[in-house]
Amino acid sequence: MSDKETGYRGKALQAIKKAKAEIGDVIRVTKKDETFEGILIPRSEYGDETHVVVKLKNGYNIGISVTPDTTIEKMGEGAKPTFAPPPIPKQKPGLPRVTILSTGGTIASRVDYRTGSVRPALTASDLYSVVPELADVADIETHILLSLFSENITQDNWTEIAQAVAKQISEGVDGIVIAHGTDTMGYTAAALSFALQHLPVPVVIVGSQRSADRPSSDAATNLLGAVLAASNGPFAEVVVAMHETTSDNHIAIHRGTKVRKLHTSRRDAFKSVNTMPIARIEDKSISMLTNDYQKRDTSRELILKPKFEQKVALIKFFPGMDPSVIDFYTEKNYRGIILEGTGLGHISKYCHQALKKAVQQGIVVAMTSQCIWGRTNMNVYYSGRDLQALGIIPLEDALPETALVKLMWVLAQTQDSKEAKRLLLTNVANEFSSRSIPEKMSYQREQGDRVGI
Amino acid sequence: MSDKETGYRGKALQAIKKAKAEIGDVIRVTKKDETFEGILIPRSEYGDETHVVVKLKNGYNIGISVTPDTTIEKMGEGAKPTFAPPPIPKQKPGLPRVTILSTGGTIASRVDYRTGSVRPALTASDLYSVVPELADVADIETHILLSLFSENITQDNWTEIAQAVAKQISEGVDGIVIAHGTDTMGYTAAALSFALQHLPVPVVIVGSQRSADRPSSDAATNLLGAVLAASNGPFAEVVVAMHETTSDNHIAIHRGTKVRKLHTSRRDAFKSVNTMPIARIEDKSISMLTNDYQKRDTSRELILKPKFEQKVALIKFFPGMDPSVIDFYTEKNYRGIILEGTGLGHISKYCHQALKKAVQQGIVVAMTSQCIWGRTNMNVYYSGRDLQALGIIPLEDALPETALVKLMWVLAQTQDSKEAKRLLLTNVANEFSSRSIPEKMSYQREQGDRVGI
Repeated sequence: MSDKETGYRGKALQAIKKAKAEIGDVIRVTKKDETFEGILIPRSEYGDETHVVVKLKNGYNIGISVTPDTTIEKMGEGAKPTFAPPPIPKQKPGLPRVTILSTGGTIASRVDYRTGSVRPALTASDLYSVVPELADVADIETHILLSLFSENITQDNWTEIAQAVAKQISEGVDGIVIAHGTDTMGYTAAALSFALQHLPVPVVIVGSQRSADRPSSDAATNLLGAVLAASNGPFAEVVVAMHETTSDNHIAIHRGTKVRKLHTSRRDAFKSVNTMPIARIEDKSISMLTNDYQKRDTSRELILKPKFEQKVALIKFFPGMDPSVIDFYTEKNYRGIILEGTGLGHISKYCHQALKKAVQQGIVVAMTSQCIWGRTNMNVYYSGRDLQALGIIPLEDALPETALVKLMWVLAQTQDSKEAKRLLLTNVANEFSSRSIPEKMSYQREQGDRVGI
Repeated sequence: MSDKETGYRGKALQAIKKAKAEIGDVIRVTKKDETFEGILIPRSEYGDETHVVVKLKNGYNIGISVTPDTTIEKMGEGAKPTFAPPPIPKQKPGLPRVTILSTGGTIASRVDYRTGSVRPALTASDLYSVVPELADVADIETHILLSLFSENITQDNWTEIAQAVAKQISEGVDGIVIAHGTDTMGYTAAALSFALQHLPVPVVIVGSQRSADRPSSDAATNLLGAVLAASNGPFAEVVVAMHETTSDNHIAIHRGTKVRKLHTSRRDAFKSVNTMPIARIEDKSISMLTNDYQKRDTSRELILKPKFEQKVALIKFFPGMDPSVIDFYTEKNYRGIILEGTGLGHISKYCHQALKKAVQQGIVVAMTSQCIWGRTNMNVYYSGRDLQALGIIPLEDALPETALVKLMWVLAQTQDSKEAKRLLLTNVANEFSSRSIPEKMSYQREQGDRVGI
């Protein structure tokens, strides 16, 4: 039994080994004042080395810390547990049809009690067993499309996901949920926002920051929120559904082009930047927070543009950056570069020569800000004007990540650099916010100012 | 008269040209209901094309928008104004001695009414004339060290600034203020935090988001706050003093290693990340927000370590990133790479081979997160463990920018890669926050949650 198979490490693994217990065995864990009896279950992922997880007879999983006063006894091999879902709750007739496409990530994985490994397991019955409320909300069909940690997702995967969504739409579903790892969820959300135009129904991307075998998991509430949004949301856009706060009561619906993962581990890691979320789910009901959205309309014809150019790079500027990293991409015949400059959109004068060469070679070079919040403005200082004179294109208040994805998409639509520039500056999927949003609101709110919640 | 000399563009420039007015001329601007008379003054920087700025007889500058109903008449060339500061207020005896070192940026520039150009002008008398309260706070000496847009500041400049601070300390000043452009202020603040150890007195970096000729300028209040902190602050650390909110009433004092510019244009753009500011200035009085700081102690002997290795790069990962950009730095014999990975500290498996090669060649490769908030944790997922097995070093909750600067500093201290790794993981200047700060507080507060202010 290795740690790779069971997820156990350190003290917890030692204690299990000492008891000669294996995954699925019935064990008794004794501490000073307490005794727990149940089935030893594997862990899909975790940071600490001290807890063993036991499925109690009442069905609950608990984590018990292994301290010097803890003993573990193997009580018997018993029957190795297999995953036996409860009977599927009886479905109401006439519910909206929602397809869940699974691409991987914490929300889409499930510990297989037979093998101890994490497997993509997202059958409708699995889901109904975990989140029984789903059966009241939608008639769900599930497809395992990919099974990837999201940091390994590429442009080809975006294409694959967009095509799978289009197929579902052609089959007449009322909404699509995409289960996705949170690491690059913002990038995929932007990609689908550009690839899927004129959507008739919602496309809702969802993930979880903490896996379903952890007591603090956000998997069930996020999934329920996503299915609610897909089945009943009045909007027809690509959105991300994740915890708005640390409580389980609020799910925020963020526009795919304006959302960013802003915390490594918190459940409310995702925030809309430079704008408000478009909707909020509270007590299973959806409130729209804006009137400015594309309405659900099943008669609307989807326009699918699923291709992305791979020869596009993001360069984050820093003091002392060697300008030859720009030459590196120029020499590799890249077609686009997004700069993540400082402040209003600046990069040192030492880079001007390399940028000039890149632009002269026909590379589309555009500017965003590493500040994250706020709008680029390359008219304020002469240094910004000089960059514009070199041909660097300022990209309003677009997130650097969204700008990157958009340029990849733009350069797959056209070979003509003038047309590329025009398209890059066109507000295709709300990647640029209106200036009419009060600046104060778009900064404070989206940074998590949760006054009154 | 060109726009480059005067700062005027568009409609405003046309109207001035039509009136044949030049900078320094007395003009009359007539609008439907109002008339303004005064001296036409140049603009150091601005985004819009519609306002002319006039110095009225009462001494105030106002911006007047040029609309179709606006006429401008030249009333006479009059005497070209020269900069005539009011008499220096009488200084109280025995005030603390503060040196202001100017490196450039909006706060340190001043429109020269004679030539219309922006010049570094930061004499004590200039300052006293702009912020008369300064004369009550400190006995100020000023030095123009550099005159750079901060995006052009390099490692050599950090060294120069650190050495200039050391010189001032050896001359017995009670505090040092560094005027700096806001674009890379966070990087310089981190650099000085590592270069200036065992400080006896405060080193306060200050800038302004909007130049002094704009009505919404934060220059005066930030400067007064910085001088207050330098002269009277009980701490002896490298800090940044900038607006805490959009009001002029609160200046936040951020630790140099934990501060980031998080908005392109707002006056409260700077936030402490993953921690609280260490102090706040309100109504000219300083409140410490923590007890955990290095106290002012003029008997403490400064340790100056001002060198930075230049062959260190920051690579921000994105989906589809070409791993050969890592090889690019390896082949250039770089000594260090900071990765800005996704989530808890991940980068795609397609980069593993290139990272392995880099580490084998002795390059120190360390991981931070592009989430900005939160802590890296490369033990949660197997992908993170695999990266650690390759030799990638997770850097707790350090900001990517601070991590970059620290690695530049570490690699200038030692040629030995084991020692470099040890030093990189040592908490030298509070670049790693204690885990004991409640996670909620360190996220919400620093993102600008200003409940009750």
